Amino acid sequence: MQLGMIGLGRMGSNMAQRLMTHGHDCVVHDTRAESMNALKQQGAKGTTSLEEFVSLLAKPRAVWLMLPAAVVDMVLAKLIPLLDKDDIVIDGGNSYYHDDIRRSGELKSHGIHYVDVGTSGGIFGLDRGYCLMIGGEKGIFQHLSPIFAALAPGKGNIPVTASRAAKASGDSTADQGYLHCGPHGAGHFVKMVHNGIEYGLMAAYSEGLNILRNADIGLRSHEADAETTPLLHPEHYQYNFDLPEIAEVWRRGSVISSWLLDLTADALYEDPALASYEGHVSDSGEGRWTVMAAIDEAVPTPVLSAALQERFSSRGNAEFANKILSAMRSEFGGHVEKKPQG
Amino acid sequence: MQLGMIGLGRMGSNMAQRLMTHGHDCVVHDTRAESMNALKQQGAKGTTSLEEFVSLLAKPRAVWLMLPAAVVDMVLAKLIPLLDKDDIVIDGGNSYYHDDIRRSGELKSHGIHYVDVGTSGGIFGLDRGYCLMIGGEKGIFQHLSPIFAALAPGKGNIPVTASRAAKASGDSTADQGYLHCGPHGAGHFVKMVHNGIEYGLMAAYSEGLNILRNADIGLRSHEADAETTPLLHPEHYQYNFDLPEIAEVWRRGSVISSWLLDLTADALYEDPALASYEGHVSDSGEGRWTVMAAIDEAVPTPVLSAALQERFSSRGNAEFANKILSAMRSEFGGHVEKKPQG
Amino acid sequence: MQLGMIGLGRMGSNMAQRLMTHGHDCVVHDTRAESMNALKQQGAKGTTSLEEFVSLLAKPRAVWLMLPAAVVDMVLAKLIPLLDKDDIVIDGGNSYYHDDIRRSGELKSHGIHYVDVGTSGGIFGLDRGYCLMIGGEKGIFQHLSPIFAALAPGKGNIPVTASRAAKASGDSTADQGYLHCGPHGAGHFVKMVHNGIEYGLMAAYSEGLNILRNADIGLRSHEADAETTPLLHPEHYQYNFDLPEIAEVWRRGSVISSWLLDLTADALYEDPALASYEGHVSDSGEGRWTVMAAIDEAVPTPVLSAALQERFSSRGNAEFANKILSAMRSEFGGHVEKKPQG
Amino acid sequence: MQLGMIGLGRMGSNMAQRLMTHGHDCVVHDTRAESMNALKQQGAKGTTSLEEFVSLLAKPRAVWLMLPAAVVDMVLAKLIPLLDKDDIVIDGGNSYYHDDIRRSGELKSHGIHYVDVGTSGGIFGLDRGYCLMIGGEKGIFQHLSPIFAALAPGKGNIPVTASRAAKASGDSTADQGYLHCGPHGAGHFVKMVHNGIEYGLMAAYSEGLNILRNADIGLRSHEADAETTPLLHPEHYQYNFDLPEIAEVWRRGSVISSWLLDLTADALYEDPALASYEGHVSDSGEGRWTVMAAIDEAVPTPVLSAALQERFSSRGNAEFANKILSAMRSEFGGHVEKKPQG
Repeated sequence: MQLGMIGLGRMGSNMAQRLMTHGHDCVVHDTRAESMNALKQQGAKGTTSLEEFVSLLAKPRAVWLMLPAAVVDMVLAKLIPLLDKDDIVIDGGNSYYHDDIRRSGELKSHGIHYVDVGTSGGIFGLDRGYCLMIGGEKGIFQHLSPIFAALAPGKGNIPVTASRAAKASGDSTADQGYLHCGPHGAGHFVKMVHNGIEYGLMAAYSEGLNILRNADIGLRSHEADAETTPLLHPEHYQYNFDLPEIAEVWRRGSVISSWLLDLTADALYEDPALASYEGHVSDSGEGRWTVMAAIDEAVPTPVLSAALQERFSSRGNAEFANKILSAMRSEFGGHVEKKPQG
Repeated sequence: MQLGMIGLGRMGSNMAQRLMTHGHDCVVHDTRAESMNALKQQGAKGTTSLEEFVSLLAKPRAVWLMLPAAVVDMVLAKLIPLLDKDDIVIDGGNSYYHDDIRRSGELKSHGIHYVDVGTSGGIFGLDRGYCLMIGGEKGIFQHLSPIFAALAPGKGNIPVTASRAAKASGDSTADQGYLHCGPHGAGHFVKMVHNGIEYGLMAAYSEGLNILRNADIGLRSHEADAETTPLLHPEHYQYNFDLPEIAEVWRRGSVISSWLLDLTADALYEDPALASYEGHVSDSGEGRWTVMAAIDEAVPTPVLSAALQERFSSRGNAEFANKILSAMRSEFGGHVEKKPQG
Repeated sequence: MQLGMIGLGRMGSNMAQRLMTHGHDCVVHDTRAESMNALKQQGAKGTTSLEEFVSLLAKPRAVWLMLPAAVVDMVLAKLIPLLDKDDIVIDGGNSYYHDDIRRSGELKSHGIHYVDVGTSGGIFGLDRGYCLMIGGEKGIFQHLSPIFAALAPGKGNIPVTASRAAKASGDSTADQGYLHCGPHGAGHFVKMVHNGIEYGLMAAYSEGLNILRNADIGLRSHEADAETTPLLHPEHYQYNFDLPEIAEVWRRGSVISSWLLDLTADALYEDPALASYEGHVSDSGEGRWTVMAAIDEAVPTPVLSAALQERFSSRGNAEFANKILSAMRSEFGGHVEKKPQG
Repeated sequence: MQLGMIGLGRMGSNMAQRLMTHGHDCVVHDTRAESMNALKQQGAKGTTSLEEFVSLLAKPRAVWLMLPAAVVDMVLAKLIPLLDKDDIVIDGGNSYYHDDIRRSGELKSHGIHYVDVGTSGGIFGLDRGYCLMIGGEKGIFQHLSPIFAALAPGKGNIPVTASRAAKASGDSTADQGYLHCGPHGAGHFVKMVHNGIEYGLMAAYSEGLNILRNADIGLRSHEADAETTPLLHPEHYQYNFDLPEIAEVWRRGSVISSWLLDLTADALYEDPALASYEGHVSDSGEGRWTVMAAIDEAVPTPVLSAALQERFSSRGNAEFANKILSAMRSEFGGHVEKKPQG
């Protein structure tokens, strides 16, 4: 099958590569010519303009956008006039599902189909395959199935879910790694929540490991003053834990084994003190949108919210609030701020 | 009535002063001679040794300790041999109520009565009076009532609670500002929870004011890259709020008026940017103990826990956890950490 | 000064009453005729149609809307054609500040001025006065000042903020209880955050009191099985606290005294077990919008978020999430769900 | 090698079985005779008294306790007098690490060695192997290595961590699934934090799936009154998501794939509405102890704390706090509680 790919960053160019490995034809486009070279060597047709790009695609065209969410509308504005009725536009990036709902309506007025695909897998997807969460018309989903099947991991060596095996269910694509989740926006909605969960998982591991790292607090000297809570039982905190080894052992047989733990074990073995990081953690939109959706639904998400807010805090954004706390303490108790221990 | 006061820091010396203003006799002791001078000028008897201190008190003696929690046991070890059966020891500091339960048993074996008093009011207590939460034997509480009544604010100009006024309840001391809360430890238990609540209140104001302070985010320039979530609607965040004025207006007629808000309004008017603070916020033991008690009781305390943890975070203690987050993001997505905006 | 008031619910009719008490003229309107009777007896002009309402107001008219947020736009659609250039519309209800920004633009195109007023004070406002947070054009704010001053509490017996008194600042209205917070939307933005803070304060008290209520857990019998965490130290939880008395004593001299505490003490004295409540806690929009604004600003608000989510949870909205937890526990550990203790 | 196993519940009997499969000899004991039958058929020596149990073990004896934490001390009291110098007691259950520190000292005074082993794997461990986190003397750990190696999963088909493979590290047992974590208590400390993390992970999935389940809220009818926040954009919440399929697709190629997700997918496929669960979620001690350790260390754990507290809440323990919120709302706003939607 033929697919046009616009946007050849880390994700887009890996995906084109994986498609070609699985026997599909790719026409590719990026404003940066150099991004296309490697792909051209593997058989892709590179194009220097959107006009050329569109002209090389057979109708009905299938155009996959793999772009930063912020530029999708701009590219669409240029692309739509070049497309024809029954063509298909797929947004595989990290768009807000609100935008999918709006765009699908705009494209429909031109007779163009719109598909939103939440794509998970990161830089490992090239080899491991991508988990694809898909929204849009069911018929269009089926038409594009060969593309999705090639990008997805397939059954691989992942064990079949026991209850599913028992029922011989039949026609789900979920155990191939791609799924039609529902109408327009459904794909990015599910991907949004996926990322919200991801924040929670990441925070759980990192908080736990931080407790282990500080289990030596009873061995450290402490100041004894009214501003410092005394450690009641220093004898309980005399451990110097080897975090890379602990992360490794948890990978085997424990209840908390996961792919994120695999990555954590790798990072910790490489650099046990994580000295190459500062700990200022970015957040992309999905974690925020997840919490906002939960608020609209009145669904409690204390863990997902806390995970998001820890990131805000890691970037220093609690500073003014903390100064107010210090100011209050100074007001009512004459407490003088202490410098944190070095 | 006569009271002996050991520990003449900010709290102890103010309390002795307030007692004398209300006509009570004070014998005072502190290892730092200079702490006694001001009080002696107001009529207190200063003493240079515990022996002298005890000898000047009429039996049954009433000895009030106003000491850092960490030194109470040490002072008690010296004091107990000097005391007699039926004497009374009052711990008015911030002891852990577990220690009250233990100490009351130890003192009982000597025939000495123990009273734990949670004292709230801070440096304003001298004029405003102290809120006293008291644990121990009911009879001893009654014996000491004149002392408590003098330290407490009394009815003052605080309106009577409507439902209470309607029922003409009679004999409560709560509306005088002091209360027998229950057996040994009850006073410090109630004070512990009081402080846990205080953390929550302080955090609520400080988080809210931080939102107001950042309501100008739509006016600031933003970087547009994959590591920065774009602000979808900058037109909604164009406000430069005057925080001192807002804190002030909330003091009058609003649902959130409180004494802590009064103090916040004062601090903000003095220094609107709170430039004299760094925002490294200490926590004394009570906030921790409150959350631990809640965990023992299996009572959910998301707000009180969050308020405590914000303080830990303000002192940089999340740093390693945050580095793990950055390391994971680097592993799965090739994300490179960004420096926070200046 | 003359004011037209549309919407005579609990808030609107009290406010009209307070204005008349302070010598202002009120023209009032409500679709329910009976709402107007009491006010007419106090001197208000009742009107049975918007046309009549508008005709009785002198130009430039000042029309105050005190309506549920959901019907404001509908009423505005009918009202605007009846108004003239330079008239003023004030929205004193709980509108979302996004709507203020939009509406002010729409009204401006008709030459009509728009003012948003966040109003705090609840049913006590009639006597206590209302805290008014105001957004819009400065000149219009000044024109309406007599109205605001009458509705606000004024200086009353609330102590002047110390640092403010020291500086003899001059012309602030904040210490009268009303404030021009900024351009359109600023009033409701500040009120929104006010309510977000309110949720946090309320949660802090309620969590703390819940800890006190369960301090008798060591006196209760416990099942000993693998599904129940044993209480390690029952001797630490033997207290039967008298919550109405504790809430009362905290009102006097403590750091956590506040108006919300006054109300809590009243409710607890009336009904110590709060048996007349089920504990399903509604949330109006402001708490949600506060957290969403914080997310847009990337400001951490763990306390305000937790307070909001506790309300969602109180209404049973965590149920499906909890079932998933039970299902997981059953899967990995064969754990069978226990019924909660009666 | 020979091992004595006391406690033949779900975990203990599976572990004895796995040991025998790997060629080790087991002497087993349980007060319930029937627990021993199956094991005896597989070659274990069953014993009806502790005396008989001890007599069948060769010196130095290795005795593994797999008992509820609450009965360990009671069994130890009977066991110790029967043991000899240089014997080894292993606690493989879920003891609090504080108890390990105490017990190791007590046993040392008898010349007996103590080893604490945190065991993860649940009912799947029989086939999958157990992740073992071990505390105690290094030499004793090495002596028992054959036992640990048999219980642990070994390398199996779990990929080697990339950075570890690159460095050819050598002698770690972590990639076999067992690890000497440090001195006495270290094993249970690491297991405690493991479980704390587990709570966080479980909560992240369950909150996310709850958001998906309620993504149809725009299709439901809503009451419009002052106690219900209107849904501003019902068009954004029109999705009927198929949760079993979504959990399944996430297992393949996504960033959030994990063993807990595997179990969730299984449970959801079996019973998509989880109708067989009520959602009252127990917590064992480890989650509580994890948060308490974090508090002692002043390490922020918003996610782990929230996950613990959600469980408390699922059992109805927030009820009184929620009633206080309703009481406050009634006081200040005359709000009448609403019944939750059916």
